[in-house]
Amino acid sequence: MKQVTTVKLTPPYLIFLGDVSDLLSAKTGAGLVQWCPDKVVGQFRSNANCVDLGVPDLNIEQAVAAGAKSLVIGVALVGGAMNQLWAPLLNQAALAGLDIVSGMHSELTDIPNLADSAKHSGSRLINVRRAPANLPIGTGRKRSGKRVLMVGTDCAVGKKYSALALANAMTARGLRATFRATGQTGMMIAGSGIPVDSVIADFISGAAEVISPDNAPDHWDIIEGQGSLFNPSYSGVSLGLLHGSQPDAIVVCHDASREVVSTCADYRLPSVEECIDLNLLCARITNPAVVCIGVCVNTSKLSSQARLEYLQQLSAQLQLPCIDPILQGCDALVDEINKLT
Amino acid sequence: MKQVTTVKLTPPYLIFLGDVSDLLSAKTGAGLVQWCPDKVVGQFRSNANCVDLGVPDLNIEQAVAAGAKSLVIGVALVGGAMNQLWAPLLNQAALAGLDIVSGMHSELTDIPNLADSAKHSGSRLINVRRAPANLPIGTGRKRSGKRVLMVGTDCAVGKKYSALALANAMTARGLRATFRATGQTGMMIAGSGIPVDSVIADFISGAAEVISPDNAPDHWDIIEGQGSLFNPSYSGVSLGLLHGSQPDAIVVCHDASREVVSTCADYRLPSVEECIDLNLLCARITNPAVVCIGVCVNTSKLSSQARLEYLQQLSAQLQLPCIDPILQGCDALVDEINKLT
Repeated sequence: MKQVTTVKLTPPYLIFLGDVSDLLSAKTGAGLVQWCPDKVVGQFRSNANCVDLGVPDLNIEQAVAAGAKSLVIGVALVGGAMNQLWAPLLNQAALAGLDIVSGMHSELTDIPNLADSAKHSGSRLINVRRAPANLPIGTGRKRSGKRVLMVGTDCAVGKKYSALALANAMTARGLRATFRATGQTGMMIAGSGIPVDSVIADFISGAAEVISPDNAPDHWDIIEGQGSLFNPSYSGVSLGLLHGSQPDAIVVCHDASREVVSTCADYRLPSVEECIDLNLLCARITNPAVVCIGVCVNTSKLSSQARLEYLQQLSAQLQLPCIDPILQGCDALVDEINKLT
Repeated sequence: MKQVTTVKLTPPYLIFLGDVSDLLSAKTGAGLVQWCPDKVVGQFRSNANCVDLGVPDLNIEQAVAAGAKSLVIGVALVGGAMNQLWAPLLNQAALAGLDIVSGMHSELTDIPNLADSAKHSGSRLINVRRAPANLPIGTGRKRSGKRVLMVGTDCAVGKKYSALALANAMTARGLRATFRATGQTGMMIAGSGIPVDSVIADFISGAAEVISPDNAPDHWDIIEGQGSLFNPSYSGVSLGLLHGSQPDAIVVCHDASREVVSTCADYRLPSVEECIDLNLLCARITNPAVVCIGVCVNTSKLSSQARLEYLQQLSAQLQLPCIDPILQGCDALVDEINKLT
């Protein structure tokens, strides 16, 4: 098989926060501090009103002295004006030899002089939204090692969070597990991966095969899911990822407070049971032994009383562990994985 | 909604056949002569041993005099050497004002001087393999008009042929029907369309929505299918196309002689019944009223005795019209469509 050049980020990271003052706009940076604190050397904030992720404040010189290798844009920058405002700082970082890592829609090369600055120091401009160019067509070939794929009743129901939490819980209990990223923030956390929603349609399952290659028989890949088979905007990505991942187990992710599809308000959300059934039916095409090992539910919008009741009721109905990973961790899912190995 | 710039080809076509001597390598050209003879003014063949599509032999001057507006590359050209060989002829055509239309993997702009020649005359270099850049995300919004989508047990089982044959049969019986192309040859025949397997994964269903826009209540789009939900290489394309098309009816296409998936020999082909069931289950997400109106089978590799027996047996089993469109035409499917309108 031809060699695919997938992106490999170089930690440690300086997280660039600009002058953003709300945590929601800084959620990429917050995710890095939460999930890969070992890779984070500090944050760059323009002033004291800026959101604080609780890591050291560093300017470019201090970050380089502290060993930083990459500046990661940890905020959602809105439009070209912002890029203009921060162009001098980003140029300074690139000239100092830091890779500049972005998940923005706009291109880093559109920022004045930035390409020249990076060329001068030999640093890289990396947009994790760009898929590699030389992906293979999916082959369906059975791969060694084990795989869990997060699937969902919709987009943005906690698939990335659940995958990261499960991978950590497995590692903590002595299992061999690797989080595999399929989206931008996940890629920054993992330091590698492929943004599957950005690949050419013919190569979705091929990308999934590259993301999760052959591995030791007792090793588990915990694969970040994307979209939903039930989301009319993104279902193609979800099915290609499901077939290419060949999961031995799926975990269904769900938001307890959501009633309609996030991108298509005319569509009711499927039930968790419908979601399990259709995902298993489709997943069996590339792995007939696939099982559903549980459900991760975001219950944060329910009252504290209602949260556990909801989970217990769903669990009784489905005869599966149904957990809120933020509330309870993922130990119940690790128990299920132990039964499979 | 933002305006999407989809390709519109300009007939009549001069079909370029180069020096290809086998009909299989010229199947694109043969498809044009079969399905849109009114758009074909002639063929360019380099010598008498070249495959003959039965239309007038014309050189560039003669083609222009006969009204040709586009030169369509009707053969599979293999590699850059061939491009070099034909560069003078293609340049002559572009300088004479003909659009150059290609479905090749390589870029027309890689052919020496061709971009300059086209610029000089104001003609266009069009690669129907390239998707438009500004596609929308699928919305799931219900559109007016009616739609049939061809689906399949695999790739290359006659979905394009069946769609074209059905659209012609409907028109012949006074129904309003338009063939909608989702692949290269289909686009050359229709003069427009989007190559859905070449779009960015996030935009598959959005592309399908653009291909088949709102229409009169009694108008039918007959949409060319791609891939198969059961093909581990291409299933993502198939599901996005299914959800974006919102078909009122599906037709399952199948090859009676195929036993394993064309791109993945370890995978057995699904039964026609499995294919109907999974496609309907998924299609109901964006159109709960969807039905399967029949099955188109390529029986050409069976003995002449076995062909009709196979179709009768399948029809009795599924309680649906099961036809070989090459053998029998599509009237039985038109009868089913008439029951829906």
